[in-house]
Amino acid sequence: MSVLLAISQMSPDVWQERLRTLLPGVEVVTLGEPFDRRSVHYAIAWRHPPRSLTGLPNLAAIFSPGAGVDHLLRDSDLPEVPIYRVVDADLAGRMSEYVVLHCLLHLRGLMRELGHQRLHRWMPDPLQPAAHDVRVGILGFGVLGQDAAHKLAHIGFDVAGWSRREKRVESFEVYAGNAQLSDFLARTDIVVSLLPLTSETRGILNKKLFAGLARDGRLGRPVLINAGRGGLQNEADILEALGDGTLGAASLDVFETEPLPAESPLWSHPSVIVTPHNAAMSDPDAIALCIASQIRAVEAGEIPPGLVNPTLGY
Amino acid sequence: MSVLLAISQMSPDVWQERLRTLLPGVEVVTLGEPFDRRSVHYAIAWRHPPRSLTGLPNLAAIFSPGAGVDHLLRDSDLPEVPIYRVVDADLAGRMSEYVVLHCLLHLRGLMRELGHQRLHRWMPDPLQPAAHDVRVGILGFGVLGQDAAHKLAHIGFDVAGWSRREKRVESFEVYAGNAQLSDFLARTDIVVSLLPLTSETRGILNKKLFAGLARDGRLGRPVLINAGRGGLQNEADILEALGDGTLGAASLDVFETEPLPAESPLWSHPSVIVTPHNAAMSDPDAIALCIASQIRAVEAGEIPPGLVNPTLGY
Repeated sequence: MSVLLAISQMSPDVWQERLRTLLPGVEVVTLGEPFDRRSVHYAIAWRHPPRSLTGLPNLAAIFSPGAGVDHLLRDSDLPEVPIYRVVDADLAGRMSEYVVLHCLLHLRGLMRELGHQRLHRWMPDPLQPAAHDVRVGILGFGVLGQDAAHKLAHIGFDVAGWSRREKRVESFEVYAGNAQLSDFLARTDIVVSLLPLTSETRGILNKKLFAGLARDGRLGRPVLINAGRGGLQNEADILEALGDGTLGAASLDVFETEPLPAESPLWSHPSVIVTPHNAAMSDPDAIALCIASQIRAVEAGEIPPGLVNPTLGY
Repeated sequence: MSVLLAISQMSPDVWQERLRTLLPGVEVVTLGEPFDRRSVHYAIAWRHPPRSLTGLPNLAAIFSPGAGVDHLLRDSDLPEVPIYRVVDADLAGRMSEYVVLHCLLHLRGLMRELGHQRLHRWMPDPLQPAAHDVRVGILGFGVLGQDAAHKLAHIGFDVAGWSRREKRVESFEVYAGNAQLSDFLARTDIVVSLLPLTSETRGILNKKLFAGLARDGRLGRPVLINAGRGGLQNEADILEALGDGTLGAASLDVFETEPLPAESPLWSHPSVIVTPHNAAMSDPDAIALCIASQIRAVEAGEIPPGLVNPTLGY
């Protein structure tokens, strides 16, 4: 029995070494070497090369080392086997670091302060809003969204979530579906996108959504934070909304095209913070542990956490 | 019975109006108007003019609208009456926002990322440390320090405190006194100063302290965050430590001279973030509520929270 690493844009070595240690007796093979296609029971896929997952007659499951599986579901040749995505506290923790950092940064006007510093200007703001004066709305209220929500609430932010389907989460109001999206937006000063990319969510961060955000917030203008997927956002609309005051600022970790092209006006927009899709990097140790335990569970006939619903797309 | 507002560098009006509402039947007078010195039972003092608190024969207590009382204790003519400082969740919450923001900012290399953005460079770091890889040490483990500690720990940081006197705080290791300072520093990657300014703490943030910080941390080099008082720090030593690699970066909200002189090299140092002593602004509403309830307690013969020990200086 072997595990195939169908990985591009990152080295398979780090995974191979760790999985061999974590799954003694299991062969861990890569695309770059000859291997027996019939022995492959499991594949770990990250931006896998076209057709690299076909012709594996005994494939029983595919694992994604990231929280998103849009890279997998794009593949029209994808074998019809269960797909599991990573469910890992380390990944959620890193994502929450990014979300809390950027919510606080906008709350406290850090970019404005750095501008004053460049001019050697001592300019304390008049009384700034406190966290409890500011409403954060999290689009996508799964494992990552809820982890961020708890940490933001602990700091004092007024947090709510929005989920495509009805969901009960202790301590938080969760708005659901298109029917409640406008109510959710109307109570939101900082909108944080942690949505998966699906046919329903593609382009959801657009002019219409921005126009629905609260206009009466203590930050003056609403703020967008997108740490989900670049395909969720319409960058022309973001620039227009920043230009006409519909949005006050944006922190973007993901982009329609990645790497973000050098000529994109987002790079030098004074109200945009660009980070290079590293809001939550995967720690190979933590991810390998997660996938190894998922593989062991599947081997034992169980359904481990992280099973993807391909119709929903996450 | 009246309350005297002995305040400079901020308008007494905001306090006068609020206290009149909160303490019906009590006269609230300011230095700029004639008032009966014998009727003054309480004074609220913030950078009070010299001798403005003397000649008040019935003065029973002095209240500071800030968390620090060094501005009061500097006054050699200070009447020997109990002094109370503000103990307020809003103030602690704002301070913790600053501390969490700056710890996360250094953890995630935000200044480096903003530098890459200016150059339109898409440069994801190799795997960054997570919060749980980084040890924050809080110098000064009172109300503010403990509030910040809980919020940092909730995000995942490995937090300990240092207090001049022995102290037990649930969930945190607290190092105490000079005897344990070096052990505290040796386990600290980000040192956060929230100390009061006293004769013992003046200049404590110096070359010797920086040299004692951990050299084996995941951030590469230790980081200094000072949101206490400018008198705690030796700015020449900070610049030297940044220059020779003893420190990697610093976030400074307070300075030896405030406003920070335009010619200070701190303004344009690439590894220093200067903020204009606004880590925790006092919200007049919250502070007035606190002082009004302290005054009511003293009137009722009780000792409200916030009583200062003038020998210790806080």
